[in-house]
Amino acid sequence: MERPRHQGMAKNTYMRWRLPLVCLLCEVAMIVLFGVFVRFGPEADAHWEEEKQKKNITSDIENDFYFRYPSFQDVHVMIFVGFGFLMMFLKRYGFGAVGFNFLLAAFGIQWALLMQGWFHSFENGKILIGVENLINADFCVGSVCIAFGAILGKTSPIQLLIMTLFQVTLFAVNEYILLNLLHVKDAGGSMTIHTFGAYFGLTVTRILYRPNLEQSKDKQGSVYHSDLFAMIGTLYLWMYWPSFNSAVSEHGDAQHRAAINTYCSLAACVLTTMAFSSMLQKKGKLDMVHIQNATLAGGVAVGTSAEMMLTPYGALIVGFISGIVSTVGYVYLTPFLESRLHIQDTCGIHNLHAMPGLIGGSLKTFPENRCYQGFIKAFDFTGPYQARTPGVQGGFQAAGIVVSLLMAFAGGALVGAILKLPIWGDASDENCFEDDIYWEVPEDEESDVYHMHNPDKPASP
Amino acid sequence: MERPRHQGMAKNTYMRWRLPLVCLLCEVAMIVLFGVFVRFGPEADAHWEEEKQKKNITSDIENDFYFRYPSFQDVHVMIFVGFGFLMMFLKRYGFGAVGFNFLLAAFGIQWALLMQGWFHSFENGKILIGVENLINADFCVGSVCIAFGAILGKTSPIQLLIMTLFQVTLFAVNEYILLNLLHVKDAGGSMTIHTFGAYFGLTVTRILYRPNLEQSKDKQGSVYHSDLFAMIGTLYLWMYWPSFNSAVSEHGDAQHRAAINTYCSLAACVLTTMAFSSMLQKKGKLDMVHIQNATLAGGVAVGTSAEMMLTPYGALIVGFISGIVSTVGYVYLTPFLESRLHIQDTCGIHNLHAMPGLIGGSLKTFPENRCYQGFIKAFDFTGPYQARTPGVQGGFQAAGIVVSLLMAFAGGALVGAILKLPIWGDASDENCFEDDIYWEVPEDEESDVYHMHNPDKPASP
Amino acid sequence: MERPRHQGMAKNTYMRWRLPLVCLLCEVAMIVLFGVFVRFGPEADAHWEEEKQKKNITSDIENDFYFRYPSFQDVHVMIFVGFGFLMMFLKRYGFGAVGFNFLLAAFGIQWALLMQGWFHSFENGKILIGVENLINADFCVGSVCIAFGAILGKTSPIQLLIMTLFQVTLFAVNEYILLNLLHVKDAGGSMTIHTFGAYFGLTVTRILYRPNLEQSKDKQGSVYHSDLFAMIGTLYLWMYWPSFNSAVSEHGDAQHRAAINTYCSLAACVLTTMAFSSMLQKKGKLDMVHIQNATLAGGVAVGTSAEMMLTPYGALIVGFISGIVSTVGYVYLTPFLESRLHIQDTCGIHNLHAMPGLIGGSLKTFPENRCYQGFIKAFDFTGPYQARTPGVQGGFQAAGIVVSLLMAFAGGALVGAILKLPIWGDASDENCFEDDIYWEVPEDEESDVYHMHNPDKPASP
Repeated sequence: MERPRHQGMAKNTYMRWRLPLVCLLCEVAMIVLFGVFVRFGPEADAHWEEEKQKKNITSDIENDFYFRYPSFQDVHVMIFVGFGFLMMFLKRYGFGAVGFNFLLAAFGIQWALLMQGWFHSFENGKILIGVENLINADFCVGSVCIAFGAILGKTSPIQLLIMTLFQVTLFAVNEYILLNLLHVKDAGGSMTIHTFGAYFGLTVTRILYRPNLEQSKDKQGSVYHSDLFAMIGTLYLWMYWPSFNSAVSEHGDAQHRAAINTYCSLAACVLTTMAFSSMLQKKGKLDMVHIQNATLAGGVAVGTSAEMMLTPYGALIVGFISGIVSTVGYVYLTPFLESRLHIQDTCGIHNLHAMPGLIGGSLKTFPENRCYQGFIKAFDFTGPYQARTPGVQGGFQAAGIVVSLLMAFAGGALVGAILKLPIWGDASDENCFEDDIYWEVPEDEESDVYHMHNPDKPASP
Repeated sequence: MERPRHQGMAKNTYMRWRLPLVCLLCEVAMIVLFGVFVRFGPEADAHWEEEKQKKNITSDIENDFYFRYPSFQDVHVMIFVGFGFLMMFLKRYGFGAVGFNFLLAAFGIQWALLMQGWFHSFENGKILIGVENLINADFCVGSVCIAFGAILGKTSPIQLLIMTLFQVTLFAVNEYILLNLLHVKDAGGSMTIHTFGAYFGLTVTRILYRPNLEQSKDKQGSVYHSDLFAMIGTLYLWMYWPSFNSAVSEHGDAQHRAAINTYCSLAACVLTTMAFSSMLQKKGKLDMVHIQNATLAGGVAVGTSAEMMLTPYGALIVGFISGIVSTVGYVYLTPFLESRLHIQDTCGIHNLHAMPGLIGGSLKTFPENRCYQGFIKAFDFTGPYQARTPGVQGGFQAAGIVVSLLMAFAGGALVGAILKLPIWGDASDENCFEDDIYWEVPEDEESDVYHMHNPDKPASP
Repeated sequence: MERPRHQGMAKNTYMRWRLPLVCLLCEVAMIVLFGVFVRFGPEADAHWEEEKQKKNITSDIENDFYFRYPSFQDVHVMIFVGFGFLMMFLKRYGFGAVGFNFLLAAFGIQWALLMQGWFHSFENGKILIGVENLINADFCVGSVCIAFGAILGKTSPIQLLIMTLFQVTLFAVNEYILLNLLHVKDAGGSMTIHTFGAYFGLTVTRILYRPNLEQSKDKQGSVYHSDLFAMIGTLYLWMYWPSFNSAVSEHGDAQHRAAINTYCSLAACVLTTMAFSSMLQKKGKLDMVHIQNATLAGGVAVGTSAEMMLTPYGALIVGFISGIVSTVGYVYLTPFLESRLHIQDTCGIHNLHAMPGLIGGSLKTFPENRCYQGFIKAFDFTGPYQARTPGVQGGFQAAGIVVSLLMAFAGGALVGAILKLPIWGDASDENCFEDDIYWEVPEDEESDVYHMHNPDKPASP
């Protein structure tokens, strides 16, 4: 058996048997579990005709598919192209960014369909799925993609699959506690997706702290083209975020409103990001890192409240603040976290997801009197929750944040410890942020890039 | 305070205080105005339940959101990815193309919601917004993106924000005159968006004429990869143009028809563009500039008439002609405009938007007798407009073009004069089309590119 | 008349008169035929109001436009961005990949509207088109894009237009035989699109066999950036495939189900592709060729059965198998086909479309008893087909595959023979896979790339 060419000090990154084994095991498990548990929900099943008659539905257009499928596709693009390309900013980790994101998301959505299904769509021993389940699975995986951002470039694909397995599980538990036990509303997932995902990822990367990571410091930057590729990710996340925040809102006005609020918040966020990106730099130039990331903070922060009567100007204020917070975070907080707290956060998810997620989760919405009825509807203050006043609900929303944080810290610590085992094939410090470890990289351009960046070789004049 | 590194002859491009100030002022103004004026429309408001009962609407699917949201998202992609990437063809202006487009569009949509709202959605002192307003705001910003194409690479971000402020204002006034006073139909915006936007931008670039621009001539071209990035913009504009032209058409057949007509026109346009691109070149090779731009002319030209009974073959003819006109324009007219009329049109918007827009606005649609009823409906010849015959309507459509042109020339001259003030931080002639002025550009590759393109340095053999 | 600069041995690639002539002839023919035959269908026509009353439809939302337009746009993106960018992996054929795909698809959709219209939407001497026709035209062109993958880099744009003309014709005939005569179900087009398209393309490339193609072997690989561009194509195909397979399914549950099945199959496919990509390589590294292509095999294989009661775990199994088959094909079968059968398959369409298409077409679906009613509905076992049992239907499905294969072989041989005529301007062997033959390529970077890859010139140290 040939030995792998690139092999860090005492690190064995040879994937040939380990990665296939893990992938195939995971997928076979999925098939078995799907076989036992997963069936079509009533609106995707051939019995829909009977269902229609029973519920006195007159038109096929009332099928939930037509309410949600366009939003689903937008969310799908955000997960695979949005996150995949956003992380492509590293100069030599484009294959890993888009490819590993592809791998973990493809596994994650299957596992999420099961986990979320057991908690939310379980009937008579079967999980009945429809388009809303697909959206929720994508959401769940979104939180894994966020965590991936913190450890980007420093983990093997096996570690990513393991993290996905655990994080999706914890996500589903946390979501169940928040939505079903605490009866918290969190349509755009400020808490369940962003806060949980980000602090989970940050805890993992803290546990996996690499003291000598500066050995690959030159590869942690971007090049001109990699920044342009990353903008594809940014823009698709930015443009489709209204779909993200409205995708599982109730039919009708709630979905409509969530999209408008998100649209407004994101627009405001772009201006404050540009302002602070220029202001915080001595030369006054704009920094692509901020434009690629902080412009999205408005979508994160408006997540929880998007479907409520936040009003458009409220959304602008949320976007305004989160753009500032996020940009300031990139300039001051990320270096601090790395040097003092030993949290190496490759993509700066603390600035893009953690802080804006906290803002979003903490948002008190002040319903105007005239729409109190709508507020009641938005929060489902009916049945057992009739007694909840907005104040009490605020307390439960706060509890939701605390629970999410605790789950993230505990879960992240556990998963970090597992990933620290020296058997998963992660790269040595000097080989981080380098596609060549896990990917066949085309020969000639590789040599060209080495020639470009290697100061030892006498540069062409 | 450190002085900026790149500083053209007597030109101060230092943005550190000016850009943040302008951005924050703009955004604060938006928040205040939104706070005073903008509220949710009835279909996005929590009162939708009552509205439904009042209007006897039986299903949430009748909410305008479900008629228009998918088209809205397509239009949104066209504005941010379509225009942003289309302008990325310049070899060293990718950050500026996509980043400044992002900035001006994010500001523009907010301001457009207000301006168009005052004219079109103002009720009891409030602007009531819904998904159609978002689409119209994107449309309005589309005309600014078009104008941006003419001055691409030659202006500072502050100038772009100022232009956006004025152009959106004028757009809304012009639109009001055309749609509400002249009662012109212009669903795809051949007149309001393309003709107005293009001639506005051309006037601005004429006023900002730079006699010594050949100093940065070498940066005005493309490189292999920048042309590929630009094709992303082209294709998204091309594919989603049917949504653009149908997004605000009336529900039902009009929206359906507008999409089909646009699809046909664009398909025809590709073939004539390819034909003339090869034919007009001595070597017979295809030119990426034409493929990136002229293939879209069919969408522009069919804008006004797309929702009418143009018929598919009529659409093919429109696409056929506009592909030819646009390609010929790139080969012969752009050099003429630059050398004789001193109009420096970076992206050739005269060929892509101005001329096809004029074609579109001038199109006489010949309704067949059998659909006279539909024609009446399409033009709303009811109420005060009952007396309008197709002939009279044609006159009003022509008047719409004239008004749009006058607004564009007058407004463009005014804005151009303002932008000429030497306080906005635009680049000197030799620094045009260069990201390095306003952006932090990654170090190493930059040096590599300089090495590649600088003939003074002894090239590697 | 200037002679072309690049001119292979005795090969004249000068396009100046030939390409424009062919393009313009094609387009004029389209206009005439559209003028004679194509009109709006009832749901896109101004008579829709009357139609609504006649059919007792109460809301515009019942217009087929709202059932299918979002899926149509997704399919449209797959054809133009998906296929166009997927084929961009070659290091110096990006313009050709995306540009020629653009050209042939733009022509193909027009011709497909006519051909499919005559067979399927012909009423009273007119073809009545609506959004479903647009989708079907895109589907038909999809099969041409597939065939293009086999001959990518080796043919002139004229040859591609000729191939499109014939292949669309044969596609429509084949589709008519399958759907209308054999009454086969094939919603996602496993047979009509993928099997037919792939074997057609493979036959053509066999006839056009170039024994000395290794002269341009160095250009057949990818570079780092071209692989990233190709991932854009891959991801859009992957994400939107659920729309592809559900776009023309019946309203309601069938469309819903088709999307879910495809989503599941594709997710499973990613894991087995990754597993086998690593396993089949000595160094255990992942190969971008597999990730770019084999991850899509699950969408192809599930095409025929997606709208049936395949069930989610059935879809996972299909995806599982097709990922393996496709990856193994890339590693072992493609070299075999080239060396032994003289089939030079640039993109490996045999692995991505041909084999998975066969799998898909052969799939027996085992309806559970409880949904027998739905099965009957899915297959339309009513009227003249009432007597068909699932077993008999299986036989007809098999006959569909055989017919598709025969049409592909016969048609491909015919078209290959026509394309072999020495008058279409194809490149010589040493100029294959090179944009410079048919495109104006920006000067400086071109020279840079030559410098990078040319071992004869003394490399910069």
